[in-house]
Amino acid sequence: MTFANATAIDAAEHPYTARIHDGWDVVGNANGGYLLAIGARAMARAANQPHPVTVSAHYLSPGRPGPVTIDPQIVKAGRRLTTVRATLLGQEKPLIELLGSFSDITRIEGPQRVDASPPDLPPPEECQQVIPDPKVGFPPAMMGRLNLRLHPDDANFLAGKPSGEPLIRGWLKLADDEPMDVFGLLLATDCFPPTIFNANLPVAWTPTVELTAHIRAIPRAGWLRCRFSTRFISGGMLEEDGEVWDESGRLVAQSRQLALTPVA
Amino acid sequence: MTFANATAIDAAEHPYTARIHDGWDVVGNANGGYLLAIGARAMARAANQPHPVTVSAHYLSPGRPGPVTIDPQIVKAGRRLTTVRATLLGQEKPLIELLGSFSDITRIEGPQRVDASPPDLPPPEECQQVIPDPKVGFPPAMMGRLNLRLHPDDANFLAGKPSGEPLIRGWLKLADDEPMDVFGLLLATDCFPPTIFNANLPVAWTPTVELTAHIRAIPRAGWLRCRFSTRFISGGMLEEDGEVWDESGRLVAQSRQLALTPVA
Repeated sequence: MTFANATAIDAAEHPYTARIHDGWDVVGNANGGYLLAIGARAMARAANQPHPVTVSAHYLSPGRPGPVTIDPQIVKAGRRLTTVRATLLGQEKPLIELLGSFSDITRIEGPQRVDASPPDLPPPEECQQVIPDPKVGFPPAMMGRLNLRLHPDDANFLAGKPSGEPLIRGWLKLADDEPMDVFGLLLATDCFPPTIFNANLPVAWTPTVELTAHIRAIPRAGWLRCRFSTRFISGGMLEEDGEVWDESGRLVAQSRQLALTPVA
Repeated sequence: MTFANATAIDAAEHPYTARIHDGWDVVGNANGGYLLAIGARAMARAANQPHPVTVSAHYLSPGRPGPVTIDPQIVKAGRRLTTVRATLLGQEKPLIELLGSFSDITRIEGPQRVDASPPDLPPPEECQQVIPDPKVGFPPAMMGRLNLRLHPDDANFLAGKPSGEPLIRGWLKLADDEPMDVFGLLLATDCFPPTIFNANLPVAWTPTVELTAHIRAIPRAGWLRCRFSTRFISGGMLEEDGEVWDESGRLVAQSRQLALTPVA
């Protein structure tokens, strides 16, 4: 099943309905970027705008496969931006709470200055593809829906040898070369292995409290180059900063999440 | 009037009431960090939690002095975190829409690793204090409520000579040495001059679409060291990243905003 189908919305009635499909999970819980993509599709539909500009998600409960509902509420429909909030409900519980502003980003213009570059990566075929291992549950099932290839310097945690730096870089495509739209970029901001896997710290997982993604451009066809890094692990939390660049070398999305760091 | 009084909430009835006070504005419009502090105080009260952990604000309409209402709605009261959304209404219009998670951050623990340092600043007395100029409206009135001292390398835009780098660093206190609490940190994330003032680009102002702030620790008494920088000016928008450190050298808040870059 394609990402487009796996995140499709039925907007015939309010609240909208959708479904958490099998195979987009990490040890049984739906990936946060996947849930965000479902929620944002519903919000964009309600806003009658094609693109999320900035959307924040607070993660409340793990999502399991099955039906969900989303109830987008227009907060303000402005000349350029439409602001929407929504709750994604599953199993009669709120799974994520969302707030975002939507627009047609191709119609917003301004000057250009970029003081950063895409991550320097060896060609995809020289990078380490992450393949799910159904027996162990790690790498997770979701990796079967993606073509994710890690920078060799950042991939040794897969063999139990973390680099020591909370940094993960790599190439990303959807499986079977499915085209990546702006909602796919939301998935991209949260589908890489957590940066903590490369830090030598007694933290086994980092449940996301909140993730904010900015969509800065529509990606060209092809590979995405992604970079996730963490500078601040303190007070029981960490931030993880993401940059997603397209094959033409343009920043297409930027993200930051705040996650808890429970001691393993 | 103190910042504490200028952001006080009356929570006797729902919706809560507050007031946008004079003197916290930029050419007549209330500062975004000031509005965020009012909204977050109301949300924390409703959550019965002392600290914002992460809060996002979408800016909808300019705030003018006068009464406002805030209607915090609990989305989920969890074991550790309580998630709340709210609309701050003034002049019968939504001014900002808010979503945040609140907790007692002193009760969350975990490992520590920080790969960053506070900005290197000359002593406050060798930095450039920003003083309001009521005749021109710039620097804005709000600067009279703050003790804001810019790094000399970043302050020459005040004399019409931008540095060319979208970077602003400086020391911050509230006026009259009023103690800075976690809500003051929210103000801190949006009260510095915009980074664009140091870029040589035809952009006169950068209206905030969305700002997300993470509160990472309770600040010690004394000066805050702050750093605001921008790397991505593209597609009619820019991001501005903030770090707020306390006098003990600890990161106390981190922020990112997305703003529009209308051509002057």
